[in-house]
Amino acid sequence: MKPVQLLILAGGIGKRMRPLSFCKSLIPFAGKPIIKYVLEDWQKIGITDFKIVSNPENIKKLKAVLGEKNKKFFVQKKPLGMAEAVLNVKLEKNKPLIIVNGEDLIAEEGCQDFLKMAEKTKGEVLLTGLYREEYFPGGYFKIKDRQVLGIIEKPEKDRRPSKFINLVVHYFRRPFLFLKYLKEVKTNKDDAYEMALDRMIKDKIKVELFTYQGYWQSLKYPWHILEMMALIFKHRWQRKVAKNAKISSHAIIKGQVIIEDEAEVYDGACLVGPVYLGKKSIVGHHTLIRESMIGDNCVIGFGTEIARSWVGHRCWFHTNYIGDSVLEENVSFGAGTVTANLRLDGREIFVKRDNQQKVATGKNKLGSLIAKDVKIGVNVSLMPGIIIGSHNLVYPHAVLYDNLKER
Amino acid sequence: MKPVQLLILAGGIGKRMRPLSFCKSLIPFAGKPIIKYVLEDWQKIGITDFKIVSNPENIKKLKAVLGEKNKKFFVQKKPLGMAEAVLNVKLEKNKPLIIVNGEDLIAEEGCQDFLKMAEKTKGEVLLTGLYREEYFPGGYFKIKDRQVLGIIEKPEKDRRPSKFINLVVHYFRRPFLFLKYLKEVKTNKDDAYEMALDRMIKDKIKVELFTYQGYWQSLKYPWHILEMMALIFKHRWQRKVAKNAKISSHAIIKGQVIIEDEAEVYDGACLVGPVYLGKKSIVGHHTLIRESMIGDNCVIGFGTEIARSWVGHRCWFHTNYIGDSVLEENVSFGAGTVTANLRLDGREIFVKRDNQQKVATGKNKLGSLIAKDVKIGVNVSLMPGIIIGSHNLVYPHAVLYDNLKER
Amino acid sequence: MKPVQLLILAGGIGKRMRPLSFCKSLIPFAGKPIIKYVLEDWQKIGITDFKIVSNPENIKKLKAVLGEKNKKFFVQKKPLGMAEAVLNVKLEKNKPLIIVNGEDLIAEEGCQDFLKMAEKTKGEVLLTGLYREEYFPGGYFKIKDRQVLGIIEKPEKDRRPSKFINLVVHYFRRPFLFLKYLKEVKTNKDDAYEMALDRMIKDKIKVELFTYQGYWQSLKYPWHILEMMALIFKHRWQRKVAKNAKISSHAIIKGQVIIEDEAEVYDGACLVGPVYLGKKSIVGHHTLIRESMIGDNCVIGFGTEIARSWVGHRCWFHTNYIGDSVLEENVSFGAGTVTANLRLDGREIFVKRDNQQKVATGKNKLGSLIAKDVKIGVNVSLMPGIIIGSHNLVYPHAVLYDNLKER
Repeated sequence: MKPVQLLILAGGIGKRMRPLSFCKSLIPFAGKPIIKYVLEDWQKIGITDFKIVSNPENIKKLKAVLGEKNKKFFVQKKPLGMAEAVLNVKLEKNKPLIIVNGEDLIAEEGCQDFLKMAEKTKGEVLLTGLYREEYFPGGYFKIKDRQVLGIIEKPEKDRRPSKFINLVVHYFRRPFLFLKYLKEVKTNKDDAYEMALDRMIKDKIKVELFTYQGYWQSLKYPWHILEMMALIFKHRWQRKVAKNAKISSHAIIKGQVIIEDEAEVYDGACLVGPVYLGKKSIVGHHTLIRESMIGDNCVIGFGTEIARSWVGHRCWFHTNYIGDSVLEENVSFGAGTVTANLRLDGREIFVKRDNQQKVATGKNKLGSLIAKDVKIGVNVSLMPGIIIGSHNLVYPHAVLYDNLKER
Repeated sequence: MKPVQLLILAGGIGKRMRPLSFCKSLIPFAGKPIIKYVLEDWQKIGITDFKIVSNPENIKKLKAVLGEKNKKFFVQKKPLGMAEAVLNVKLEKNKPLIIVNGEDLIAEEGCQDFLKMAEKTKGEVLLTGLYREEYFPGGYFKIKDRQVLGIIEKPEKDRRPSKFINLVVHYFRRPFLFLKYLKEVKTNKDDAYEMALDRMIKDKIKVELFTYQGYWQSLKYPWHILEMMALIFKHRWQRKVAKNAKISSHAIIKGQVIIEDEAEVYDGACLVGPVYLGKKSIVGHHTLIRESMIGDNCVIGFGTEIARSWVGHRCWFHTNYIGDSVLEENVSFGAGTVTANLRLDGREIFVKRDNQQKVATGKNKLGSLIAKDVKIGVNVSLMPGIIIGSHNLVYPHAVLYDNLKER
Repeated sequence: MKPVQLLILAGGIGKRMRPLSFCKSLIPFAGKPIIKYVLEDWQKIGITDFKIVSNPENIKKLKAVLGEKNKKFFVQKKPLGMAEAVLNVKLEKNKPLIIVNGEDLIAEEGCQDFLKMAEKTKGEVLLTGLYREEYFPGGYFKIKDRQVLGIIEKPEKDRRPSKFINLVVHYFRRPFLFLKYLKEVKTNKDDAYEMALDRMIKDKIKVELFTYQGYWQSLKYPWHILEMMALIFKHRWQRKVAKNAKISSHAIIKGQVIIEDEAEVYDGACLVGPVYLGKKSIVGHHTLIRESMIGDNCVIGFGTEIARSWVGHRCWFHTNYIGDSVLEENVSFGAGTVTANLRLDGREIFVKRDNQQKVATGKNKLGSLIAKDVKIGVNVSLMPGIIIGSHNLVYPHAVLYDNLKER
């Protein structure tokens, strides 16, 4: 294999995740940040030269999580998009470059196939087109005979030039050629990266398309965490039960579960896999956890059901129903509190953003999206799709129909 | 056995069932409509000539349910009572006639004994007197030496002429004689049938009494469904578990249960018989069902208890308590919603009718009576004896003290 | 052993227990009133002469509970404190006297050691000093060389004359000498007993100190019942399961439990000891009881958790959470009702008294304190530390932030 340098963009501050405060690429799934999945996928097929660019806040965490062997870390000072990110990295001149997103997961075979095609291609640039029959609000490729003729950003559904969406798995034979274009672009939006590509195409530089039909998931909105989780359950799952986990002989565990060190599962608890249970977390009597991930040091108390939810570290529950929900960290629920996850009329659930704009989720089952350090009293009802910002106290018996800002 | 024609009155539109929309004789108990119990009881002891009269809406359903072999079906166009029903049937002239109600259940031995006495009697007519020590608002027989001297409709409790109540298990040696009387009666109420009988008695036609002391249950008000269910549990019950039902080895089943095809019982579910579980219904983790009937395609979700209740098809529950309740069909409850079934003062529960009249139920435990297609949100409290009409949505956290009209 | 007469003061009317109506010394723990623990501790080490003084209401109950063998009972007509109590007892002149409280529990070894020292002491009086590093609002001993020089009532924390608190385990070699002092005291408060002791010390009568460092618990406020329970669990616990208790093979019992006659434990019930279950009480399906005492004839219905709580006779629950709570007797909860036991801010819980004074409990986990004959509807939320007086009905869906007076 010819040497390649791989750049992972990990600087996304996740405006659309707000008020959840996650650094997107660091969101852990089954104890492993999504960026680590991405990195390991390329590592497995032979890449040994990694460059990671992120914002100043997260560089340290990234180093801790990924280790520093074979990796160089770069700080992107200003959150000005992908072009800015790339320009902050010290690239090697004569080593082909692959650029990927730190929070985009595709099939391992997809990486392999892309790399093979990159080695064979005669083009200067190889872009990835994700094939999707259904519409997606992204950039679409205009193509002819595997040559990219242009990229149309968010065309109307009926005006898509093809069914191939631009995925950031990009190969540049000569990185400095791309850098040159990047530096020349003038824009005051965050689309410099795309404009540079467009300029290259217009200048007749040969840009080829790698077509990809496998799975893909990114992390834009909080509910994408649930979709990423489902995808990891489906494609990246392997049973593992720590030897020092304490599991009652009266607990019932079915399907593929991962149970980490010192976790405890009490009498009458049911785990219906896929389920991830983090370190030192406790699953109490007469509980049910299914298709969910639970972080470290959680207590899932008596009579609680958690279904299709992502629960961060240090959360406490007690006779609750938590369905199709994302709970960032240190969230506690009083007895009898439930997340409603289905409208009475069964329709699609919209989530209100800070600016009061409603975003369609494409889901008719969605529970609550709750940021860090939130305490909720007893017998509270949380309506589908609400967002609770960090540090809120929600009083007993409340019915929340609307978001709560962070405090 | 001498040939007999048996007429089943199945036209009751069930005003007092409203807003539940059941055709009374078609209400299924353990998957079988009550009229089928009645029909089979007479079939078993040799009757082969059945005539069924019902309203236009239900004839088709009745044919489907009962089959058409050995049966003739007649339409009663106007809901004008029993006389009108009988007059719409093409009876055979020279074959003795037995008339019964399609929703009245008595002991099988009762039918047998009645038939024996009918064959022996020298009277023209044989009526059935149900012996009851306690008062019941029905017609009471005035008798002497097994001869019926008159029928007193709803006498005061202390003025009952006997302890024998008129039950519609009636034998007429010459059907056309009865028809003659029926046709001659002039009334603008729905009491023509009783008036014809009265006229016959007054004309010295010999009317004898068959006395019956066994069990009996009819279906007038919705809560009678619960009493009919209890009676069927007691007298007509036999264990049956379909081979293709999936029952977890971690489920606990005690007592006599009937579990239908493709039903599923999950880990930690407890069924304490008598319990009926309809086709393809699912009983989730950590649930309890006792002394109840559940229709087809229901989901009894995590942590739900159902006690002494009748639940129709396609109902969904999730961490609920449903006690002493009737749920017609396609009813769903959000997590934490409960049916209160006992007044705080422990007194008898009254049910309000459409006209705001309160009806005593004779019960101090009664939950909710819910019609078709009702969706109830999370953490709702339904007070004892309320009726919810069809197509209602009940908002989360509501406390219902009063009925909801159908929408 | 020299003969001794032991006087148990059992007259405390328990003002600070209100509106719970317990006679403090009769509060049962694991089926045995606390006074019986006290009495048996002294009986075991050889005391055979018991005198019990109580108010007129409870003498009969005390006789029934303790038996009359080796015991004399005296009525204290007026609730005027310890001196009044002692003066109502017919003491023997020449037999040394020990005075103890009927609701103070100390270690059995403590009684033994005290008795030994009393036999050896050359003093006229032997008092008990409980060693406690932390502050307690009681009487503190001023001492020198094991001689008591004085008793300081409720000094400020920094002005404690020692770390020894006055515990009512008192020995008088010559009872009549003490009686003389008691009679001479003039006070209109209820401190005559302490004043008499003080007078004796001032008169240079030799008063020695027995120092005690073991466990101790009294019953002043209702939440002390929880602390006494915990102490009994820790120090006085022994497994016992009645032969005629019915325990399902599908129930899970761990730790040390006491289960009384004819109690029943259903399928899927979990008892995590120490747990006491009284006579004929029923623990339903999918329940959890841990570190709690349940009286006789209770029904712990489906899906209920009871944790660290003291529950009296004839209480009914159904899908409830009861944590860190005291329920006197005949209390019932509707489905979904919970006792919140932790403030959202995690701070110490204060309990409001009748006079609106707030009392610090020293606890950050405390549920509800509920008197006799209280019925609570469905889906009610009881806030931490509230007191509900007897005969209240709490309506469905209520959120109680404040106490309810008795009715």
